[in-house]
Amino acid sequence: MNHTEKQGTTLPLLRARRLGLHTQHEAVVVMRTDCHVCRAEGLAARSQVLLSAGGHTVQATLFQIEGDVLKPHEIALSEAAWALLGVKEGDAVRVSHPPTLESIASVRRRIYGNRLDEAAFTSIVQDVVLGRYTDVHLSAFLTATSALPLDDQEVVNLTTAMVAAGDRLIWHTPIVVDKHSIGGLPGNRTTPIVVAIVAALGLVIPKTSSRAITSPAGTADMMETLTTVSLDLPTLRRVVEAEGGCLAWGGAVRLSPADDIFIRVERVLDVDTEGQLIASVLSKKVAAGSTHVVIDIPVGPTAKIRNEDAGRKLGARLAQVAARFGLTAVCMSSDGTQPVGRGVGPALEALDVLAVLQNAPGAPDDLRRRACGLAGAALEIGGAAAQGKGYDVANAALADGRAWRKFERICAAQGGLRKPPKAAQTRPMIAPHAGRIVHINNRKIARLAKLAGAPDAKAAGLWMEVRLGEEVSAGQPLAIVHAETLGELAYAFDYSEQNPDIIEIEP
Amino acid sequence: MNHTEKQGTTLPLLRARRLGLHTQHEAVVVMRTDCHVCRAEGLAARSQVLLSAGGHTVQATLFQIEGDVLKPHEIALSEAAWALLGVKEGDAVRVSHPPTLESIASVRRRIYGNRLDEAAFTSIVQDVVLGRYTDVHLSAFLTATSALPLDDQEVVNLTTAMVAAGDRLIWHTPIVVDKHSIGGLPGNRTTPIVVAIVAALGLVIPKTSSRAITSPAGTADMMETLTTVSLDLPTLRRVVEAEGGCLAWGGAVRLSPADDIFIRVERVLDVDTEGQLIASVLSKKVAAGSTHVVIDIPVGPTAKIRNEDAGRKLGARLAQVAARFGLTAVCMSSDGTQPVGRGVGPALEALDVLAVLQNAPGAPDDLRRRACGLAGAALEIGGAAAQGKGYDVANAALADGRAWRKFERICAAQGGLRKPPKAAQTRPMIAPHAGRIVHINNRKIARLAKLAGAPDAKAAGLWMEVRLGEEVSAGQPLAIVHAETLGELAYAFDYSEQNPDIIEIEP
Repeated sequence: MNHTEKQGTTLPLLRARRLGLHTQHEAVVVMRTDCHVCRAEGLAARSQVLLSAGGHTVQATLFQIEGDVLKPHEIALSEAAWALLGVKEGDAVRVSHPPTLESIASVRRRIYGNRLDEAAFTSIVQDVVLGRYTDVHLSAFLTATSALPLDDQEVVNLTTAMVAAGDRLIWHTPIVVDKHSIGGLPGNRTTPIVVAIVAALGLVIPKTSSRAITSPAGTADMMETLTTVSLDLPTLRRVVEAEGGCLAWGGAVRLSPADDIFIRVERVLDVDTEGQLIASVLSKKVAAGSTHVVIDIPVGPTAKIRNEDAGRKLGARLAQVAARFGLTAVCMSSDGTQPVGRGVGPALEALDVLAVLQNAPGAPDDLRRRACGLAGAALEIGGAAAQGKGYDVANAALADGRAWRKFERICAAQGGLRKPPKAAQTRPMIAPHAGRIVHINNRKIARLAKLAGAPDAKAAGLWMEVRLGEEVSAGQPLAIVHAETLGELAYAFDYSEQNPDIIEIEP
Repeated sequence: MNHTEKQGTTLPLLRARRLGLHTQHEAVVVMRTDCHVCRAEGLAARSQVLLSAGGHTVQATLFQIEGDVLKPHEIALSEAAWALLGVKEGDAVRVSHPPTLESIASVRRRIYGNRLDEAAFTSIVQDVVLGRYTDVHLSAFLTATSALPLDDQEVVNLTTAMVAAGDRLIWHTPIVVDKHSIGGLPGNRTTPIVVAIVAALGLVIPKTSSRAITSPAGTADMMETLTTVSLDLPTLRRVVEAEGGCLAWGGAVRLSPADDIFIRVERVLDVDTEGQLIASVLSKKVAAGSTHVVIDIPVGPTAKIRNEDAGRKLGARLAQVAARFGLTAVCMSSDGTQPVGRGVGPALEALDVLAVLQNAPGAPDDLRRRACGLAGAALEIGGAAAQGKGYDVANAALADGRAWRKFERICAAQGGLRKPPKAAQTRPMIAPHAGRIVHINNRKIARLAKLAGAPDAKAAGLWMEVRLGEEVSAGQPLAIVHAETLGELAYAFDYSEQNPDIIEIEP
């Protein structure tokens, strides 16, 4: 057994053991209750420990186990910890107390109502990216900066810290276009269409997207049903240099890696406040090297932004913070009263996107018009269309198949275009009586799709059969619920039975 | 294999397996990645699951494992989950999705700055006590109610909810006295002395205490080094009926059980705001059936309460909220400029308490005077001493051994008086130069004792060798650090070397 000198005591190293333990993202290790290292270091269950091996270090949560699942000198690593530490079976692992988490003092100051400067945000975000924040710490930071909202300077400070904690792309072209939607509107999957149109017309649009926060699908979740989205930096650069655009998952290229960690916790809390939203959006854009960005702000009573006034306020704040980073942001508010297209959920939304790109007969016109509006704005600020002509230029590229061919080539460059998966289970939601559709609750539609398994189950979600203002007869399907398992299907229908106002019908 | 009907699907039951997995308080279960229940219910790693067996239900976090540590139909339960579910090896366990966590919508409303009513607090606290809040949810609730502090009505609502979620004691006597210290002052262990004096003089004082929040020892941690503090309700009642007082851990009798869960998270964050503090203190007092309570508020630049004004404000707010529950609260501010007595940490503080009760020659006079002041106030409001005479009556009961005999009898009734443990490792902190002690930082003293292992390691902590105003020579010990392991000792000394202002010496 190897030995290592530490703090005056001689501690034997432990041997890495892989149990195939899946804990999602969480780095967990298991050591024996009677392990000499636990005794020597005073480690108890749920202690945070620092693992070192072959030049890598990882912070993990310790669980302890009795009996003979492990030998006394073994340490079992969860799959997440195993990957982060990069060890092989039997490798020597050193275990010690992690260094004191100094940045938590800044979180505490923030909880007590004090504003934080750039240095404080930088140390917090660095510790977050190093995996040193537990769920308790992450949730406290996000809640504190929601309950007393981030002010403009703090949003700039947090954005700067988030950009600094990750990689940054540099493009050798004066104009790099980007697009973002504030979300909150199920099925609003314009990004792939916008990227295809804008790249087809010769602009550079290296689009990275996040996964869903509180919605049943993010663009990355949807695109993953059609092609590979986990691109490393060299691949992403190669795709963009060849095709002018890409549709990649931002997390895989470490652009603002803290954002993905914050998003995971925000998703559990279903909280995504303005300041965090702006820092999240802009840190990705700045890190991606964008110079011009078009931002879609859907407005509706059950969208994320409830009224035009709030939409304008958010747009102004986004543009103002963006300017601090030399980024030109154009914000456009859009109709957020009902889901866009027919699909809600990764694979079902992909079907809508393909239909629009391929000019299929049943293609959802609302999705097509929204995409042309945003692409048009991008073409105008990027200099590829005259002022006021963007929409028509975009629409023409869609109609004559240039956008579809560009989309095919982007997917081919990313690893090949594939068919989205189909769900094993489907069941219609039925109109209880005849009448006119007067209200569709976006939040409850999203909730229903999530209960059916989206976004983790890619094929799960809803296929809308009706739109606002349409007349239905009793027994007619309002939407089809798609799920991978009967359990999830039942879970979704329990919810829909308890919430008759998901789709309201006026007799 | 047994089968059970659920939501239209027939799911086989799993068999409980005990691996001796220690996860502290956290209910964790491990199932095989290829387990049919995981597939049927769409369960992934870190899903929350509901376990049912023999009429009990427990919510737990799911981890998944590959290979043959578990058989396909087995489910391994952490020790915490095992105890909560009350199963035996091989018992049938049903696994399903937990019901939707409705109360999190109230937490979200609170994050967005809305005040909560009693019904909202009640549903939150009930879900917390049922173990349905993960660390993310708990931390969000506590942070939200810190960043936008609880107002008076919310403190009443939260207190009411916390009382309702646990057991409640009823005493058949018109006056039931209680005592509390706001904390923040290391070594301020007056409670056992106050209880002994007050009970010796014939009043009823059924004292329940919590464990440390952010300090190196709570009264329950300290008393546990001398006797059994985990008393069930019948035992607690028997001790109080026989002796007039007890010194029990509040968590074991389920008085305000939510408080212990909140405290665990507050400890990680090192956050304990005024509203939460008042609800925590008063929910325990109301649930314990107290009618009169004396509250000690130490004030000092590094105590929890920084100045007299803040102390008065807190005292007034405590008394006002207490009155809403028919409870008379008397708040007394006290000197909080330096640690009380000599010991800091469970066992070391117990030595100070024993010395005062036994009138030992080196007994710390500051601890004695503080205890007599508080006991005197309790005797006065309880009618066992004339106004202005309480201190002298208390002091006499201590001097003539009545308090010590009462303390011995209380400990005997709780399960026997024992000697506190001694630490395996000790090392002195040395004065770097001669001079006068001009400042002692309570927060850093507490931090040092915690790094040495307190309160989890009962014998760990500090033994103070100097007090404010004393002259020391170079090389003289300022304090002795006690620890169970060399690793923790080194950890404490790393901190003391980086913080030369823990004990300041003016040359």
